[in-house]
Amino acid sequence: MEIIRTVAEMRAWRRQAGKLAFVPTMGNLHAGHLALVKAARERADKVVVSIFVNRLQFGQGEDFGAYPRTFDADCDKLRAAGVDALFFPEEQELYPRVRQDFNVEPPNIQNELCGAFRPGHFRGVATVVTKLFNIVQPDLACFGKKDFQQLHVIRAMVDDLNSPIEIVPVDTGRADDGLALSSRNGYLSAEERAEAPRLYRNLEQIRQRLQDGDHDYAALEQAARDDLAQAGWIVDYVEIRQADTLAVAHAGEKRLVVLAAARLGRTRLIDNIEVFR
Amino acid sequence: MEIIRTVAEMRAWRRQAGKLAFVPTMGNLHAGHLALVKAARERADKVVVSIFVNRLQFGQGEDFGAYPRTFDADCDKLRAAGVDALFFPEEQELYPRVRQDFNVEPPNIQNELCGAFRPGHFRGVATVVTKLFNIVQPDLACFGKKDFQQLHVIRAMVDDLNSPIEIVPVDTGRADDGLALSSRNGYLSAEERAEAPRLYRNLEQIRQRLQDGDHDYAALEQAARDDLAQAGWIVDYVEIRQADTLAVAHAGEKRLVVLAAARLGRTRLIDNIEVFR
Repeated sequence: MEIIRTVAEMRAWRRQAGKLAFVPTMGNLHAGHLALVKAARERADKVVVSIFVNRLQFGQGEDFGAYPRTFDADCDKLRAAGVDALFFPEEQELYPRVRQDFNVEPPNIQNELCGAFRPGHFRGVATVVTKLFNIVQPDLACFGKKDFQQLHVIRAMVDDLNSPIEIVPVDTGRADDGLALSSRNGYLSAEERAEAPRLYRNLEQIRQRLQDGDHDYAALEQAARDDLAQAGWIVDYVEIRQADTLAVAHAGEKRLVVLAAARLGRTRLIDNIEVFR
Repeated sequence: MEIIRTVAEMRAWRRQAGKLAFVPTMGNLHAGHLALVKAARERADKVVVSIFVNRLQFGQGEDFGAYPRTFDADCDKLRAAGVDALFFPEEQELYPRVRQDFNVEPPNIQNELCGAFRPGHFRGVATVVTKLFNIVQPDLACFGKKDFQQLHVIRAMVDDLNSPIEIVPVDTGRADDGLALSSRNGYLSAEERAEAPRLYRNLEQIRQRLQDGDHDYAALEQAARDDLAQAGWIVDYVEIRQADTLAVAHAGEKRLVVLAAARLGRTRLIDNIEVFR
């Protein structure tokens, strides 16, 4: 596996890569990331993964400094997974003037759901993904459904700005007890880890009710919020939305997604589940 | 010359084009555009020109509706200039949902100089150029120095968002009496056309003074504004700036650009001149 640290080397490597699939990550890789790599390998001649903890998408008081950096272990996993190149730029390679002057500004969905709790987050994601796409120039890029709103923003951006890149969504990887795989799970104490699957259990319960024909979205959302709060979670949101647009869902909608974000101790967890009727 | 009207056809054509140079225009072509085409031909295997009057970069009350559309004459000129393909999309091909949801937001220079008089203009330019770059995927693109602030914004954007495209600046084409070639010159009455070279004469005069060692920028700017106003112009601005950053220039600066915008009757003219000492 080639390790590439500069934009110039990345561009040169790309020229001989044929059909290229790209998996952007912030490192601290787990089985969820490796599922993205697998999807990438099935669709292209070569696979490039990036590891870059992007300051631009972290808010004030968020965990940018504490975000786990595990470079050597990540490299071992990527080599074993058959990745051809790792793009691992230093911060000043992507932000040479420290400040990013031009930003890709998403529409108002950036201020809803997770965006309501993380101002500027999706602008930071859209901007760094645009930069990475321009540097790597892949034919396709794989994103996990675990970050469902992020996937939505990236897909809408590619469509709206006519980027010549196919976006491949990949199902959320889960532990045996249902907890969505996430780098932030590493922040959980043993006790919190035992409690964490409650988030997904609540989403599953809403899915079941929706499939049984229950259309009272507000009541379903409230029941989940109450259950989490009673178990000691701080709930950011539980919302039932249209799966394709992330717009607020009206009764009778056929393609839904239930999204949730809640904090357990100091750790913020997110999850979602699609419901097609 | 191939005439291409859809994004899909443009992408397909691009794949066999080799090293590709791109000249984005709004049509109503004159010798200034043909100088861009010439610069493009010298640097690539194939040249594609686009004609698209981009609603996004026109403000309320500006001349979007009146902007001259001269498709047949433009095609004749481009054929004679040896252009390989013309990308000529309908509005709904680039804006299928009418509204553009994702925008490329330039930094504060977008609100200065012409931006102070055309709110949203440079956001509209940055966004449509990003779209066109993503569709055409050229190796290089030619922009005229006549729109100096636009050239600056595009160059800074390409650099800041890591676009894999070389930006080639091309000198302003001028009539024998010095007037910068512009599609908007066609709006001028015979009397206004005779008066119009005064804008460039004032820039030339400032250049001469600067090269003679005059550092009193404010007085130089004011003298030009007064001369234009006395001749019946409405002056938007005359400003001496740093050529490379467009930042406000301080005395002793070695690389300057003098920029001006002023209205003669209902026609807004812009021009600029670089001064290197």
